[in-house]
Amino acid sequence: MSKVLVFGHKNPDTDTITSAIVYAYLKQQIGEEAEAVRLGDVNNETQFALDKFGFEAPRLISSVVGEADKVILVDHNEFQQSADGIEEVQIAEVIDHHRIANFQTADPLYYRAEPVGCTATILKKIFSENGLDIPANIAGLMLSAIVSDTLLFKSPTCTEQDVKAGEELAKIAGVEIAEYGLAMLKAGADLSDKSLEDLLSLDAKEFQFGEYKSVVAQVNAVDVNDVLNRQEELEILLNKNVAENGLDLFFFVVTDILNNDSTAVAIGQVAEAAAKGFGADLINNRVVLPGVVSRKKQIVPVLTEALK
Amino acid sequence: MSKVLVFGHKNPDTDTITSAIVYAYLKQQIGEEAEAVRLGDVNNETQFALDKFGFEAPRLISSVVGEADKVILVDHNEFQQSADGIEEVQIAEVIDHHRIANFQTADPLYYRAEPVGCTATILKKIFSENGLDIPANIAGLMLSAIVSDTLLFKSPTCTEQDVKAGEELAKIAGVEIAEYGLAMLKAGADLSDKSLEDLLSLDAKEFQFGEYKSVVAQVNAVDVNDVLNRQEELEILLNKNVAENGLDLFFFVVTDILNNDSTAVAIGQVAEAAAKGFGADLINNRVVLPGVVSRKKQIVPVLTEALK
Repeated sequence: MSKVLVFGHKNPDTDTITSAIVYAYLKQQIGEEAEAVRLGDVNNETQFALDKFGFEAPRLISSVVGEADKVILVDHNEFQQSADGIEEVQIAEVIDHHRIANFQTADPLYYRAEPVGCTATILKKIFSENGLDIPANIAGLMLSAIVSDTLLFKSPTCTEQDVKAGEELAKIAGVEIAEYGLAMLKAGADLSDKSLEDLLSLDAKEFQFGEYKSVVAQVNAVDVNDVLNRQEELEILLNKNVAENGLDLFFFVVTDILNNDSTAVAIGQVAEAAAKGFGADLINNRVVLPGVVSRKKQIVPVLTEALK
Repeated sequence: MSKVLVFGHKNPDTDTITSAIVYAYLKQQIGEEAEAVRLGDVNNETQFALDKFGFEAPRLISSVVGEADKVILVDHNEFQQSADGIEEVQIAEVIDHHRIANFQTADPLYYRAEPVGCTATILKKIFSENGLDIPANIAGLMLSAIVSDTLLFKSPTCTEQDVKAGEELAKIAGVEIAEYGLAMLKAGADLSDKSLEDLLSLDAKEFQFGEYKSVVAQVNAVDVNDVLNRQEELEILLNKNVAENGLDLFFFVVTDILNNDSTAVAIGQVAEAAAKGFGADLINNRVVLPGVVSRKKQIVPVLTEALK
């Protein structure tokens, strides 16, 4: 088990899957044995990017116990979002762009977080710091991550560094950003083959807001009514999930990728307080969130404050 | 309060003080308003380095409340080692070389930790990444930090990167490493003007080992008997400190900087268990630690394991 495993968060998105592949590739180039793995199913958007640039999805694992002594986390750090058994292995490195919480180590480590829109933007710097060229297909994956995390540079999490990195990577990958990016986002927003159960877990992250155990899930859609027309059925599932997992809040966000707005369905004992955090009332268990597209920058901070 | 404050840990050592000065300087060069401050008295070793390279000690603060909205931590991250009120301000950046524990943020941040011997070694890279030259007097401070943290490259925490950085910085600063380094370490190990109360707080850090609230303090000496000859009086102070602060362990380490060995005086209900962790018996409240010079690499991990 001398090999180091590289992985992103549970319910993986495009940044998490591609950053694991890309960073494992980078490690191999500098002579380290590294394998990218994943903690959940690959979504349609990510599959579109993998297919486009000729990659297989990484191997699926659920627990790190017995898999590795040493791991590298990309695109996350909070233990509840990480592999089961994460407390029992050495975390050698973290490359991330989120806040730090519920994370600790016994030993010094390499930890590289930057307040940018996407892990791939940081990885691009690390290639450069190591004097390594980025091959075209790897650049394609990295561009896909940036397009995904920034919703084609429209999210408030997007920084100038992400735009610049995206443009340079598109050149290396030989693709036209707007055209490729929208095709990829639409592939991810195509919910026609998804059950509501699928949607619930597609991009769900667990958070502790003050005393309250919460899940904030987000799905992208070309038309939010594809999801909201099934609200009754959805609420049954959300209520079941809240009961089974002892949640105080399930905040299910549907984001319109063309108009860059969201609507949330909120269930749980603090659902009303959550809606109030956005200065809105919970009506029919729904709250409309105009201009909100970023869980990290526009949803988590509001819920952190509202539920503290 | 648009200015960002830059500071290291309580009971500051040379790396903490100089890294605050150096990183504030770097920030100013890239157009940010930054001020280095300190959380405690400057020790003799650090004063020697400041005098040699023509710097004043940074301004002393105890709490960040009312001082700043935004701070940068260097050479530490654990909140109990940081400024009072640290939970109430935004931590914009951390530059560190320790494990991560008891640390969290509400927002994404720039966090740069590397498993090297000294914060200055990381700062040197950040100068280079920003295309900035290091002036001779700033290089002198950075060299002093490396000499201090690695005990002139002899500590097991010292990496090849620290040695290389130290050599390059000595060239820029125009000093001969061995000669300057030993003079600086000796200035720090000169305990003649120190009361035992001074020694207790000179470089004391608080840790939570499992259930046990602990302090591990370390002083450098040219002759450990300068301290150990006063053990009776020392124990009275340690016992008082244990009682007043509800400690389970006060582990007071005297390190011989010429022979690179240490002796610890251990007080508290888990003192014997602490000694056992080193495979030794506590005799007369003392435990001899041959070859041990690094709190981070040779003491904290052993106590973490022994007291878990």
